[in-house]
Amino acid sequence: MTWEIFNAIGTIAFAISGAIVALEEEYDILGVYVLGMVTAFGGGAIRNLLIGVPVSALWDQGLLFLMAILVITVVFLFPLRALKQWKRWGTFTDAIGLSTFAILGALYAAEMNHPLSATIIAALLTGSGGGMLRDVLAGRKPVVLREDIYGLWAMLAGLLIGVGAVNQTWGLYVLFVAIVILRMMTVHYKWRLPHRTIKQQEDVSV
Amino acid sequence: MTWEIFNAIGTIAFAISGAIVALEEEYDILGVYVLGMVTAFGGGAIRNLLIGVPVSALWDQGLLFLMAILVITVVFLFPLRALKQWKRWGTFTDAIGLSTFAILGALYAAEMNHPLSATIIAALLTGSGGGMLRDVLAGRKPVVLREDIYGLWAMLAGLLIGVGAVNQTWGLYVLFVAIVILRMMTVHYKWRLPHRTIKQQEDVSV
Amino acid sequence: MTWEIFNAIGTIAFAISGAIVALEEEYDILGVYVLGMVTAFGGGAIRNLLIGVPVSALWDQGLLFLMAILVITVVFLFPLRALKQWKRWGTFTDAIGLSTFAILGALYAAEMNHPLSATIIAALLTGSGGGMLRDVLAGRKPVVLREDIYGLWAMLAGLLIGVGAVNQTWGLYVLFVAIVILRMMTVHYKWRLPHRTIKQQEDVSV
Repeated sequence: MTWEIFNAIGTIAFAISGAIVALEEEYDILGVYVLGMVTAFGGGAIRNLLIGVPVSALWDQGLLFLMAILVITVVFLFPLRALKQWKRWGTFTDAIGLSTFAILGALYAAEMNHPLSATIIAALLTGSGGGMLRDVLAGRKPVVLREDIYGLWAMLAGLLIGVGAVNQTWGLYVLFVAIVILRMMTVHYKWRLPHRTIKQQEDVSV
Repeated sequence: MTWEIFNAIGTIAFAISGAIVALEEEYDILGVYVLGMVTAFGGGAIRNLLIGVPVSALWDQGLLFLMAILVITVVFLFPLRALKQWKRWGTFTDAIGLSTFAILGALYAAEMNHPLSATIIAALLTGSGGGMLRDVLAGRKPVVLREDIYGLWAMLAGLLIGVGAVNQTWGLYVLFVAIVILRMMTVHYKWRLPHRTIKQQEDVSV
Repeated sequence: MTWEIFNAIGTIAFAISGAIVALEEEYDILGVYVLGMVTAFGGGAIRNLLIGVPVSALWDQGLLFLMAILVITVVFLFPLRALKQWKRWGTFTDAIGLSTFAILGALYAAEMNHPLSATIIAALLTGSGGGMLRDVLAGRKPVVLREDIYGLWAMLAGLLIGVGAVNQTWGLYVLFVAIVILRMMTVHYKWRLPHRTIKQQEDVSV
């Protein structure tokens, strides 16, 4: 039951996030739906693929499909003025999606007795996979690769679940809330991971 | 038998479409072949992945591979003047590919007793998946997300097959022709889906 | 045993290549790790997907994960001056990765009795798949599609293995070295595949 609720929240959050990006890119209404759906279900599809669950398990979520379509419709019809305030809400719903999917990805991987590294990577890719697909399809550089501390919190969830530090329902709820708060604090206080650059030369990479 | 013919037409149409985009992007001859093949077989691969058919079923289509390679070679060798007239033919072959793959995707999904939503989405993603891969690999924003009414016709095919309104061979042929005509009319009369924009602020999405 | 060594070399080479590209794109430290890991393991994941091996077989490579993470860390900490000399080393490690993964992809496909075309394409996509994912995630046009002779050598490996011309351990080593040398000569002598362009019109493709 925990899982279903988590999954529904994350799916809706990512559907909204994808729909908003599509609006920003001036995609038409179908593009808004497609990008919303891809963002909402892409992370789960990548997770299923990576940990060995049939990707077609996606289709058992009829109710989630309907919810995602509904919420995308709401975004599309929303007053423009309200959407401009999206920044705050977008960060929040996205944080919920990140937290949810990271935990779910880690739980799936842990349950299948994959090694710790797999659990951490599954958490990272499940949490950020939908957003990566969204950004690639919108012609953007994936936000998870370039900005703020995003994937790190997903990996933290993967680590804690992978080593067995969190394995009970209430523990998962606490972890869920903690990841959301950490992500919101990251945005609010503009925490950054270290990064360094090498000047891009004519043709450095091959 | 119907399926094989549909599949061959769509595969060739998309192979041409991918090869042309590669030429436009100044990719070398290998890039032309790769993009042609990815466009031709990518939609089917995504479909297989999503509806639970092994992706490796791809390799049973030796004849289709040969046909795609042949047609890409023809495109590469074609007189420049002729290619410039591609716009008209490109739209037409692409419409055939869209219609074919949408119908096939819907049939596959319906046959596996997936729910209606899955059938519709399978039609959409099969019809436009190859083109999406093509555009992403060419560094473009996927045309299905941004322009004209494209995916909508694929979804219409999915809907009609999903609810069982079309299920006989002759009905599929009629649907095939109808989708092609609708897509061509879309281009000719410049039908658009509604779209709206939110001005892109500094950093709206996360 | 041959396979394990080949796989380790290629994985490390691609991990470095991904990490460097991430640095060039000014991604943060997590982006460097993600892009390094995606480049290192993406080719294998695509290969598994295409030839019917469960993608989750990825997770059995705990040692390789550790090696990739270690090498990415080294890249991240490396003196800037040294990284600027990357061009030469980058081409070399990338050539090793290309050769390794092309041979492995072809061997996998051949072992599963896929047809010759599958073996050639598997070699191409395994050899260049990680790099394609890397470039797409970095917002670049995939190098394999646009520059020099890259994928051709992978396809050559696929052809020789697919027709059974190379099937013993020593033969594979020779092939491995030959592909690396051919790739290095390609870069050094600036060999190009023929390419031609069609001027991009308003809206040629669909």
